[in-house]
Order: sequence, then C-alpha cells, then structure tokens
Amino acid sequence: MPRIRLDIAYDGTHFRGWARQPGLRTVQGVLEASLQRIIGSPVPLTVAGRTDAGVHATGQVAHADLDDEQWARATQRRRDVPNPGDPVDPLARRMTGVLGQYADLAVTRTSTAPDGFDARFSATWRRYAYRIADARTGYDPLERHRTTTVRAHLDVDAMHAAAQSLIGLHDFAAYCKPRPEATTIRTLLEYDWRRDERGILIANVKADAFCHSMVRALVGACVAAGEGKLAPEHLVAIRDARLRTSEFKVLAARGLTLTEVGYPADELLGSRAEQTRNRRDLE
Amino acid sequence: MPRIRLDIAYDGTHFRGWARQPGLRTVQGVLEASLQRIIGSPVPLTVAGRTDAGVHATGQVAHADLDDEQWARATQRRRDVPNPGDPVDPLARRMTGVLGQYADLAVTRTSTAPDGFDARFSATWRRYAYRIADARTGYDPLERHRTTTVRAHLDVDAMHAAAQSLIGLHDFAAYCKPRPEATTIRTLLEYDWRRDERGILIANVKADAFCHSMVRALVGACVAAGEGKLAPEHLVAIRDARLRTSEFKVLAARGLTLTEVGYPADELLGSRAEQTRNRRDLE
Repeated sequence: MPRIRLDIAYDGTHFRGWARQPGLRTVQGVLEASLQRIIGSPVPLTVAGRTDAGVHATGQVAHADLDDEQWARATQRRRDVPNPGDPVDPLARRMTGVLGQYADLAVTRTSTAPDGFDARFSATWRRYAYRIADARTGYDPLERHRTTTVRAHLDVDAMHAAAQSLIGLHDFAAYCKPRPEATTIRTLLEYDWRRDERGILIANVKADAFCHSMVRALVGACVAAGEGKLAPEHLVAIRDARLRTSEFKVLAARGLTLTEVGYPADELLGSRAEQTRNRRDLE
Repeated sequence: MPRIRLDIAYDGTHFRGWARQPGLRTVQGVLEASLQRIIGSPVPLTVAGRTDAGVHATGQVAHADLDDEQWARATQRRRDVPNPGDPVDPLARRMTGVLGQYADLAVTRTSTAPDGFDARFSATWRRYAYRIADARTGYDPLERHRTTTVRAHLDVDAMHAAAQSLIGLHDFAAYCKPRPEATTIRTLLEYDWRRDERGILIANVKADAFCHSMVRALVGACVAAGEGKLAPEHLVAIRDARLRTSEFKVLAARGLTLTEVGYPADELLGSRAEQTRNRRDLE
C-alpha cells in the first residue's frame, strides 16, 4: 500500500486547529475532504504536529496510505503534462485547484514517502516561530494574523538570555498544560530571540517534541523577562520546580507558526518510527 | 485653526480604496467616522496617496483641520496620564480604542502638523513596495493578503536591470492609466528588485508622485522581463514610445503597499505646498 507525504501550509486564523471535528472547520477536515474529491474515497491523514486553534504552519507534514485504486487516481495526469520524477508530484497542484488560489490552506508538495516514513513517529524534531510586536515595533495591520501585540517595550537581550538558559533535556512540566498520559520530559534544542529589520520580535524554538501549549508558555515566560517582571535566571527555577505558575502568561495562538519538521535520513526511517511508537505505548 | 497629521496603516483587502464613497467601506470613510466619534463633529481628511481598492499602506499620511472645539476634544486626556510633548499625541491610542485591537486599519501616530504642512501638496516623494511569490518562492498562506502569486520562475537579476533602466525624469504615459487633466511626466527616483530570505521578490519604487496604476504597470513590465518575455532594454523603448501596450500586464492591487511619504524639513514646508498647488492648478 503506497504511502504519500504531504507538505502543508496554513493561516490558522479561521481554523479550529488541526484535528477533524464534526461541524467545525479544521485543517484536517478541509484537507481530507479535498483529497476525497480528487481520489474518490476517504483518505485519513496522520500529521507531525497537531496544532491548536489559531496556530499557523508553513512547514507542517502529514502522510496518507492509499490503496491501489486511490493511488491510480492520485497519480492520474493529463497526457500533455510531462512526467516528472515522482508520480504523485502533480497532486499538489491539483489540490490547489480544489482548495483555490490565495486560499488560507495549501499543499505545497506531494511526494511518495520513503520506506518506513511516518509523519508523526519518524519526526526527530519540530521547529516553531513566535512573532511579537511591542511598543517599539508599532502596529502593522498586514502582520496582525500572525503577530501578537504586547503593550510594553521588551528587552530582547534579556529575553534571549532567558531563552538560552532553558535549553537542554529537562522536565518541562512547569511550561506544559498537563495531560493524563503524556510525558513532559523534552529536549529543548534551540530557543533564541531576535528583532527583524522591522522591529518584530521573533522566537525560534526547536525541540524533539513539544507538550501541550509548551511554546506559548516558554514565550510568555520570556516576555515576562523582557518586561523586567521576571529575572532571566528565575525561568530556570520555575522549570526545575516542575509546577505550573501564574508568574507569566501563556501567549495567544495568533503569534505561533509551525515552520519545520525534521526527519532522519531515509535509511534510518524504519527503526526511528519503531522506537518512538514503542516509547509512546509505554508512556 | 490647528492642523493635525495622522500616520496611518491598513490592510487594503477589505477596503474599496481610500476615497470616501457612500455605502462602501473605504479607509477614509472608516477613519472619518471614527474621528467623529471621538471629536463629536465631522473632520474631513486630506491624504498623501489616494490608494486604489485592495492596495495596502504601512506609511500613509493624512491631515485634518480642527476648529477650537474639535481641538479641545481631540486633545482631551485623563488626569492620570502624564502629559507628553505633543497635546494631540494620545489621540492615536484613542483611535485604536474605537477601531479595535488587531483591526485592519490603524492610526499609528497623531501629531500637531508643522506650519505650512499639507499631507498631499507638501509631499516630495512616495515610496511603494510590491511583493511577488513565484514558482521558486512557493505559496505561503500567511503572505497571501499582500503578495501576488506568479506561476513562472522569475529572473530577479533581469527584473532589477530592467527596473534600473527606467529611472529618471520621463513621460511615463506608457505606464499610466490615462486621466484627463493629469500629467504623466514623473521623476522615478528609485526602482529595484531583490529576493528576501524567504525567496519573496520585493520591489522598492520611489517617485516624486505616481500617476494612476503606474507602480502596478512598472511591476508588470519587469515581471515580463523576469519571465524572459521582454528584453530589459525594451522597457525603455516602451516608455519612450509613450503609448499604452499589451506587451505586459498591470499587476493586481494585492501585492502593493504604500510604505513611506517624504516631506521637506519644517522650515521649507510653506513654499513647497504653494508650488505644488500652483502646478496642479496649471495642469
């Protein structure tokens, strides 16, 4: 049964998150309905990062398993279009035909998944960006869908120092919304803050995986540091206390974008997915 | 009668352009209505660049003349707010209160206009940006409101060379939508193309003033050059023929943003506005 990989981008503003929910507009719901229009029968998707309502993505990844009939329809092409390397490559453009030009959701690439690839369990890391306009940046209506506004003037150096101090393998329970069977031990691989040329504060956050609302809590804690309300070293103390605190806010979904998902080289894919799946079963 | 200057930003997607029109949502219409809610009586605005439907702005400038009663209401403040230098400075924040947080229209600054300032007639130059995503850039839904998509792969070096060749004082009739009493002689001060770090093609276009649809025509001509359909030197030939042509398209409003308006130093303001007003009267 051939497996296909879909690279996906969306403006999350008008979606109630990734996961399919009856009667609500979700990314998974719209994508599966569009795929079904092309392929003729239902195709469930498995995703790397199940984003919350309002969260955006430029580098989301999903996979789908197609039976022979579905594969035949997914790889159908007009005779006058030259054959590219990958038979499923033209599907992305056909998805645009269904989703519409200038839509808030797009499949940027479709490809045949390598052996052992699993969009969720093969992923070795996820990267998010978070964007903030503060008093110094000023308000730009063209940025409003993906940028959170903060009234204070933020000290980006204090935010960056605070962010750096949190990196590593730790129990991030203090920065996670608790969920019954989920571990809160994570490896925070990168966390940095900078201002771009327009003055927008941008966080780059990369971890093996994130527990629920973790990026928005990590961002909120650094904003408190940037406002001078929390000393940067206090963020480590909060982390190591492993208890939720009201000393900082969990920031809005609006500013958050999933930008990239990392996978191992093709030849390592099978074993990686197996390991992660087993670990999840134990948790 | 005190004159105030308003610095304005908007996402033009859901506006039918700048100019007030009965029954339509326009930038001028929404701004004047919001000002009236604060000031209590109508306040007509004069603007630097009357943008078309769908065109955005991050650096639009307007002015308004207030009578004494209007001035008193515009500069009203709560007792607990410290007095800034300019008595009309807090008006911008009150405008946000009326327009709403995360609105598609914002007054980014309000200030007392210097003597002789006229938002339209004092302006010595206007600067626009135009954004294009081509086949190499890929489609990003978060950019869709202000970025035009082009299917081809564009050669940015050819576009930049073509753009540079058009600079100077010329009759731009070939790049203007004709209007009865308007001159098409303009000084194109800057016109360059680059790709940003995400691969989006960005034009910077600066002129003393623009005739109608001029930026979008100049952009369309350079896109034809970037597609290899027009030789860069042919754009100069088209300009010097001073006739409209179907050899390139006038691109969509979606990609266009007014980013900056230039004014002379305060002490030169009076004479500049006078000169421009007289020149317009002669045209």
